[in-house]
Amino acid sequence: MDRASQNWKLTLAYDGSDFQGWQVQPGCPTVQGTLAEALEKVTGERILPQGSGRTDAGVHAIGQVTSFHLFAAIPPANLLRALNRTLPASIRVMRAEPAPPDFHARHSTRGKTYEYRVYRGALCPPTIARFVHATPWKLDIDAMRAAARIVVGEHDFTSFVASDPELSSLSGEPSSEQKNKVRRINLSEWEERASEGGEGGLLVYRVHGNGFLHHMVRNLVGTFIDVGRGRFAPDAVRDILAARARSAAGPTAPPHGLFLLSVDYEDIPA
Amino acid sequence: MDRASQNWKLTLAYDGSDFQGWQVQPGCPTVQGTLAEALEKVTGERILPQGSGRTDAGVHAIGQVTSFHLFAAIPPANLLRALNRTLPASIRVMRAEPAPPDFHARHSTRGKTYEYRVYRGALCPPTIARFVHATPWKLDIDAMRAAARIVVGEHDFTSFVASDPELSSLSGEPSSEQKNKVRRINLSEWEERASEGGEGGLLVYRVHGNGFLHHMVRNLVGTFIDVGRGRFAPDAVRDILAARARSAAGPTAPPHGLFLLSVDYEDIPA
Repeated sequence: MDRASQNWKLTLAYDGSDFQGWQVQPGCPTVQGTLAEALEKVTGERILPQGSGRTDAGVHAIGQVTSFHLFAAIPPANLLRALNRTLPASIRVMRAEPAPPDFHARHSTRGKTYEYRVYRGALCPPTIARFVHATPWKLDIDAMRAAARIVVGEHDFTSFVASDPELSSLSGEPSSEQKNKVRRINLSEWEERASEGGEGGLLVYRVHGNGFLHHMVRNLVGTFIDVGRGRFAPDAVRDILAARARSAAGPTAPPHGLFLLSVDYEDIPA
Repeated sequence: MDRASQNWKLTLAYDGSDFQGWQVQPGCPTVQGTLAEALEKVTGERILPQGSGRTDAGVHAIGQVTSFHLFAAIPPANLLRALNRTLPASIRVMRAEPAPPDFHARHSTRGKTYEYRVYRGALCPPTIARFVHATPWKLDIDAMRAAARIVVGEHDFTSFVASDPELSSLSGEPSSEQKNKVRRINLSEWEERASEGGEGGLLVYRVHGNGFLHHMVRNLVGTFIDVGRGRFAPDAVRDILAARARSAAGPTAPPHGLFLLSVDYEDIPA
């Protein structure tokens, strides 16, 4: 057996409904734990794959990224096939690529894109209910768009961080970065999207930034929904940012509307 | 208790993944059986709700329609709420309306719209895998569109009916109509739709007709996919129709890509 290890980058999609989030926990089904078990079955190696960040219980992923070193010499297509045969259908390895030795799914992250899907209507077809937050309220999308634009740029997002310090430590970012709540948001937009069942369709929030604090996207969305309902004026988001207090913002939107779409890295040389 | 019964029209959405189809079967979870149980729990009345037609195991619905008579006097909003509290999350009553005494979900049908979703790519994100047929082939959508146009109009669809006579009798149409395999198709189109995960997105087939034979939509889709793969030229669909033989057409596409979108009736006076 070749003792030189190979670093790997895997892109994962998962339906988060049945998992207690990304991070391994004893006695709980987690994405990281399930992937570690599949890797052990396939390669015989016990390793803990590193994620680009932790996703909470119920949050979905289209392009979560994970990295780990393996001693086994295995062609990428074979690793992908073997893992997908071993993993439950709720997790798919969408891509498997060899990576340079120093690539790390979390430390090498340059940015992330999330999407949050809001269904307009209290009655939601079961074919989409696992993947949207159904709201009974009439929402003013223009107000939500105006509010979303305010967070673009570099801001201190203390008001949008989970206030529980224990929860905050779950964000998957190193604790030194936890102290600094400044993040840069490059895109923050609401779009309307057709959807089955509801005449109102979906309102979809897309956000790209250089990093996200724990619950940050869900707290932003909860606040934007409050704006859409008329509880806050869009401009109130400026004051909420300035307040640097979780209590100033709206509630945390539920996890099952949230998708980690993609993670950016510097180009990996082939 | 008022002995005069009220006729009801319910519009249902369901995730067909966990059901053995619409029609009640002893010892199997079915949509009709589950709805009958919920109706009994809510009203105390044992009735068998009639569907616009049977959907096969695994087929989904956004707008299935069912009708039944109840003796209980109950406001529509209360019936809807009580049923949705009682039903599993995989079935939702989207609308509940009183109907004229002679309205019948199957006999009064004027037409139906189905949708079939094909995912271009063998690797499908788990967030959509229950609701699409994932195909690894490169599909020529122009050829599929040309093939789909050929079935518009009135045709004998014998070549697209389930060949098993027992299966044929499952279509939910009266047996006298079973003998006549002529149906009118008013719309038969493929469209491209963006989708998460796959660069290829979805190919979505929409079909509206005055009636559908058992497996007809899935057999049409299986044949159009064969056309997309280059196994048949689009014009071969003319010969397949003329052959009046199931063996002339392509395979039956799997159930989980199929959605009953809506059922048409004459306007129901309020």
